[in-house]
Amino acid sequence: MIKFTINKNAFLAAMRIAKQAIGSKIAIPVLSKMKIIVSEEGIHFTASNGQISIEKLLSADSKEAGMLIESEGGILLEANFFDSVIAQLPDNTFEFEEIDANQVLIRSGKSEITLKGQQIELYPMIMPITTKPYAKIAVGELKELFNETAFAVSQQESRPILTGVHLQLIEHQNLQAVATDSHRMSQRRIRLESFGEDFQVVVPNKAVAGFKTVFSDDDDNVSVFLNPTQILFKNATINFYSRLVEGNYPDTDRLIPEENLYTLNLTLDVADTLHAMNRAKLLTAGLQGGTVKLSVKEDQLILTVNTPEIGSSFEELPILEKNGHDLEISFNPQFLIDALRVLKEPQFRIFFISPVRPFTLIPKEEGANFIQLITPVRTN
Amino acid sequence: MIKFTINKNAFLAAMRIAKQAIGSKIAIPVLSKMKIIVSEEGIHFTASNGQISIEKLLSADSKEAGMLIESEGGILLEANFFDSVIAQLPDNTFEFEEIDANQVLIRSGKSEITLKGQQIELYPMIMPITTKPYAKIAVGELKELFNETAFAVSQQESRPILTGVHLQLIEHQNLQAVATDSHRMSQRRIRLESFGEDFQVVVPNKAVAGFKTVFSDDDDNVSVFLNPTQILFKNATINFYSRLVEGNYPDTDRLIPEENLYTLNLTLDVADTLHAMNRAKLLTAGLQGGTVKLSVKEDQLILTVNTPEIGSSFEELPILEKNGHDLEISFNPQFLIDALRVLKEPQFRIFFISPVRPFTLIPKEEGANFIQLITPVRTN
Repeated sequence: MIKFTINKNAFLAAMRIAKQAIGSKIAIPVLSKMKIIVSEEGIHFTASNGQISIEKLLSADSKEAGMLIESEGGILLEANFFDSVIAQLPDNTFEFEEIDANQVLIRSGKSEITLKGQQIELYPMIMPITTKPYAKIAVGELKELFNETAFAVSQQESRPILTGVHLQLIEHQNLQAVATDSHRMSQRRIRLESFGEDFQVVVPNKAVAGFKTVFSDDDDNVSVFLNPTQILFKNATINFYSRLVEGNYPDTDRLIPEENLYTLNLTLDVADTLHAMNRAKLLTAGLQGGTVKLSVKEDQLILTVNTPEIGSSFEELPILEKNGHDLEISFNPQFLIDALRVLKEPQFRIFFISPVRPFTLIPKEEGANFIQLITPVRTN
Repeated sequence: MIKFTINKNAFLAAMRIAKQAIGSKIAIPVLSKMKIIVSEEGIHFTASNGQISIEKLLSADSKEAGMLIESEGGILLEANFFDSVIAQLPDNTFEFEEIDANQVLIRSGKSEITLKGQQIELYPMIMPITTKPYAKIAVGELKELFNETAFAVSQQESRPILTGVHLQLIEHQNLQAVATDSHRMSQRRIRLESFGEDFQVVVPNKAVAGFKTVFSDDDDNVSVFLNPTQILFKNATINFYSRLVEGNYPDTDRLIPEENLYTLNLTLDVADTLHAMNRAKLLTAGLQGGTVKLSVKEDQLILTVNTPEIGSSFEELPILEKNGHDLEISFNPQFLIDALRVLKEPQFRIFFISPVRPFTLIPKEEGANFIQLITPVRTN
């Protein structure tokens, strides 16, 4: 029969980390619950949507929590409702007491609220992962790696393998992320400080998005654990489990053209190009597959859009450097917008082969560790 | 054939005031357009949803606009699309030129965008209101008056007359607003500085909401004009027209109880009561018509909620002053939440007759100029 007193905000902050696993669609009724286990270590929160499961420990010796545990135990409570009740309590601290089997009395200020819970045995087991860690990664670096690639994952369920980010550890120290929806691709490689055992997995895009919000930038490192169906990102107080996407990821290396095929490369300004693409996109408004035409003629780069029902646009973009032959190529401006948004350098290089072959772009300084590829649209 | 150059942000800010009339549902295709008329006075923007119409003048001598008019004229342009195009222009200024009948070329920096428009004759006429002004009101005061009452309008279309705010000028100087959904009522009266001719109208809730966003707190006063079907709020650069709700508003004065009927009155703290009601509301969660029971016994005020499936709450609320007999009464906590949210004073007085009669509340200092009424729920 649980009994403890605690600081309201510290309790809420910890519980809400686990609660992020609970989506708006609840597959099984019990997954709308928060599992709370009170032990001498502190309070363990567990929540899951069946694909992603998060365990968070609020440590007994946390200063902010000012926790005083009188009695241990476990209970399931309706997660969203329980969160709202705690958030509305009048005082900064509250007492949580199991007064009857699976019935909880919350006392705070002059309020007393009685809530019905359920026994923890009704909650599904999260399959533990017992391997050694495969890698240790700085949270900030992994977030960035995901951010630079995940936008390119496929939104179509027809090829499930493309709905995740392909994460590989190569040669024990090079961590590579790739995403593609078969129209464009983003591939990013970083070098880890520590060594690990090589692996390759496909992390579902929802887990990638979840990782960014569950781990805060104050968290230093996470260790990566794997079994054949799951990945676990773990730090001192958080276990973030996700199912993996099953299947073999396509060989994306062969999509990147040989360097000697390129007939034109340009250096351009990221911000200028992004703004021009945003205007171009407007003029293709409402037209799925609307395209912008990029024409390079001597030292001029001209962007044109012509959508008969709406209007047209024409603009010049400064070329910072040019090597190679003149070219005309058409493509979906949204792809270049997405690609440029994740660049942190002010300039980028773009490489073309022909109007019908994919083109690639890289940040000017960092180069080929971050390569993106976009397929053009054939027009007549 | 229009031609002018102008500052982008000043143009956008003025156009967006008119654009607020355009909702997400477009009743007639032409009402998705912005009507732009350029004259020696400046640029006139007109937009409408058929119920509400807004005209905004960006004056030719506005300093921020830095307007240079070379040629006058009028055109209709697709409002949302045109807004996005202007917002994305590369430079701080742009040139707007009608290059062909109803075809516009926008030049800014190195961008040239051609847009198709339509002739202004296709736009419906807004019926002008030619009366003398009925009243002159400070914008801030009218916003407050609306804010203090509009939350109580009916959301049900079954009695259309209750979906608006009843606005009356009484004795030439007392402006009164009333709203009720037949379960609760809010009535607010203020004294105007200027005299006017008595009137009474029902302003649709959408126009009330629109008024708050169209007129900024920098606007000093608006004049009120009326004809049998429309109201016009007007200042130097904005004409805000709304259709009125047709019909006779019920006589709400007779709903307010005679003072000698009250058997109990209490003075309570607004913030404490609001927080307690929010907790009470949570425990009625998901139950339409869930109620909180308020029990006054000697010097104790106890609030209880009991929802068998979810849980229960019990809390004490301090009574600051009490006159009269003990009482138990049940009501929907949301009604008291809405009522308290619009009070600016820290304390309020609440008056009861019996468990089955409506109760009233007023701000402690200001008193009966702002009176609200809530109907209890009978329980057994």
